[in-house]
Formats: sequence, structure tokens, C-alpha cells
Amino acid sequence: MARTHAATNITWHEGAVTRADRQRVLGQKGVTIWMTGLSGSGKSTIGSILEQLLLSKGRAVYRLDGDNVRFGLNTDPKSLIAKGYPEAAAKRFGLGFSAEDRAENIRRIGEVAKLFTDAGVIAITSFISPYRKDRDAVRALMQPGEFVECYVKASLAAAESRDPKGLYKKARAGEIKGFTGIDDPYESPEKPEVVVDTEAVTPAVAAEQIMAFLQTSGYLQA
Amino acid sequence: MARTHAATNITWHEGAVTRADRQRVLGQKGVTIWMTGLSGSGKSTIGSILEQLLLSKGRAVYRLDGDNVRFGLNTDPKSLIAKGYPEAAAKRFGLGFSAEDRAENIRRIGEVAKLFTDAGVIAITSFISPYRKDRDAVRALMQPGEFVECYVKASLAAAESRDPKGLYKKARAGEIKGFTGIDDPYESPEKPEVVVDTEAVTPAVAAEQIMAFLQTSGYLQA
Repeated sequence: MARTHAATNITWHEGAVTRADRQRVLGQKGVTIWMTGLSGSGKSTIGSILEQLLLSKGRAVYRLDGDNVRFGLNTDPKSLIAKGYPEAAAKRFGLGFSAEDRAENIRRIGEVAKLFTDAGVIAITSFISPYRKDRDAVRALMQPGEFVECYVKASLAAAESRDPKGLYKKARAGEIKGFTGIDDPYESPEKPEVVVDTEAVTPAVAAEQIMAFLQTSGYLQA
Repeated sequence: MARTHAATNITWHEGAVTRADRQRVLGQKGVTIWMTGLSGSGKSTIGSILEQLLLSKGRAVYRLDGDNVRFGLNTDPKSLIAKGYPEAAAKRFGLGFSAEDRAENIRRIGEVAKLFTDAGVIAITSFISPYRKDRDAVRALMQPGEFVECYVKASLAAAESRDPKGLYKKARAGEIKGFTGIDDPYESPEKPEVVVDTEAVTPAVAAEQIMAFLQTSGYLQA
């Protein structure tokens, strides 16, 4: 049932807006580009360039990374206490770095990426997300085609030699425990939709490879 | 520092895309329209019409409500167990209806709305969100102007007479405990940016009142 409101001449329908409506308005399909790879593999750099490429073409795109997630939705107990949470609640909901906490970190990010995808936005996530099980759980949240696993490939030797944040050095010195690639495993994707080999191409070329995938796979039209 | 990549002629900048860039592309400002009011006040109906009005004007808009949040990001312990969570982790992270859980429910929704707002999207949230403290905590997450509290006003008598989901009847019969307005308080906003009086106007007019607020406040331009 459609009605027209006299004052604005806007026609609307009883019931909810559909995802197809949102995609039509944005002229693209919602999708999650899930970048996974070692620390130093280039996820953030490539994600940032991809974001700029998409934005320069007028696309609705948003990047989820440690900066906007770890200090917000997935913040730690201390920060929740600072926000007025009672200690028990802060310990319960705040996230640390245990396996359980890491899984919940990825689950929440996956759920948020799913919402952006449902909104018709191109969501780019940049997290190491080392465990196959956690990534597959995110994939399982979404419909086929919505989750694009992008393996940002670099050997441990290459990633460690870059060490942009000095984290490998600290991990080797034992100052950081459970660091992916050093004393915690990185499980590479078995069937990623996209692989970018950061020892073979520059971050800019890697971003364009992902862009080409989006284009040829039809994501850049509604 | 700006560079041009030969292959695509795309110019990008070192460093992150800014929110202003995203807003320019979308031609609007990111904002959270936080609808609060009793069950049956009309939040979802008005939110849905507002969503359609905005979409029909080509706006990037997304609605967060119980349907897409309670079954996903803020799901209950049982559903987490069904997804393979160990029982202890499911109980820890899954949400029920205690005061602590309700506060965390609103906090997570607020953090997600903040991400959509940062993405340049108009986020509409439809949750009773009865406690002033929880709403004010969400407001505190955001910058001035990003959080638009919209009080969807209806007297308890009016909301109860509508009772679209039969929840008041169940609450009166004692089948639901802690129901807002019956045996749990609703704390109305003290300084909401917008008030729509659903005993005086239809949902369509209420949605247009909010639309007019967005227009005159400059949210519909970058």
C-alpha cells in the first residue's frame, strides 16, 4: 500500500524500507571487505588507499579499524570504569586480549560490519583477525557475496622487517605476549575472495586490485 | 602531501580520509537521531517514515532498532551458545534485561550510531531507552550537534490504549516484569532537540517535523 502525502508529494510504503531501496539510492551494493593479515602486512595502508579510491568515485565507504573500534564499542574494562561503569560490569563487558575476548572483539566488529553492509555501505575492516574460526563466524553472519575476505599476504620475515609500530621487536624481547606470528598463530585464509601479495606489489597497486575485484564483481552498481 | 597514481589518475593524500571528505561525497552531515519514548509511542513507525522520506531525497540513512540489533550485536546468551560460544563467554557477553545489561545494550547501540554518524550517515535509532543516564552517556560519546535526542511523546494512557504488540496487557497481567511505564520508570528527556507529540499529530506529520528540523539545522548539506 503506497500513500502520497500532500504537503511534500513524497510517496512512501507501509512497512520497512528494504536494503534494495538503500542500495538504489547509493548506487552500489553493501559489502564487507574483511582484510586479514599479519601485523605489518599492510592492511591499514591498503585499506586507507582503497577508502580514498572509493570515496574519489563518490562511493559510500567506511573503514573499521582499531582506532574507531577498540576505543569505542570494544573498549577495555578500565575505560568503561572511567565512563561510570561499576567494576563488575566493566570487567564483564570490557575486552582484553584473552582468546575469549579476541573472539568477542571480532564478533562485534563482524556484527557492525554487517549493519554497514545492510545499510548499503562498503565497509572495510582492518584487523589481524588471526583465527580462521573467528573469521568464518563473521562470514556465517552474512549472506553469500556480502563478505569478501581479503588476504593481505606477507611472510613473517617481510612483515617483521617492516615492523612499522615496533611491535615485533617488543614481542621478540618478550615485552608483548601472545603476539601473532611470534608466539601466537596466524591462520591464513583457505578460500579468500581476494589475495594481495604485498611482497610483490605496492600498497597502491594492492588497493587497485581490490577495487578491480569490486568493479568486476558488480559491487559498484546497485 | 598529495600524489597522483598514473594508472587511474586518482589523487589521494597520505593519511586518513576525514569525516569531512565522507560528508562531502554524501552531501550531508552524519548525525544520530535518537528516538526515545514509551513502548507504543510511535518510535518505530515515525522512524520508518522518516527513513523513507530521507531515502526518497537520496539521503544515506540507516535505522537501528530491535530487529537488527537485538538479534545481532546485542544478542542474548542462548543465541551465542547456538553460535558456538562456550557457556561462560556467552553468559558474559550476551545481554539480558537486567539494569546492567540494559545499560550495555544502549552503550553498544550508541557506539554503533556514533560509527554511522562518523561515516556521514543519518542514523535513526528506535529504542525505548528509558533511563536519562544511559541516553546522556550516549550523548557524551559524541560531539555537539551529532546527537539529536528526539522525544516521541505519548502519555502512558495513550501508549497503553494503542498497545500494538499487546505488551502492556501482558505487563498488567504480570507476565512481563520490569516493563517501562508499568513497573519500571520512563525518564523523559529534559532538553531534547526535538519533541513530537504523537497525541497531537499523525506519525507522518511527526516524521516531517523531524525532517524539517534536519533541514533547518543544516544536516542535509555537507
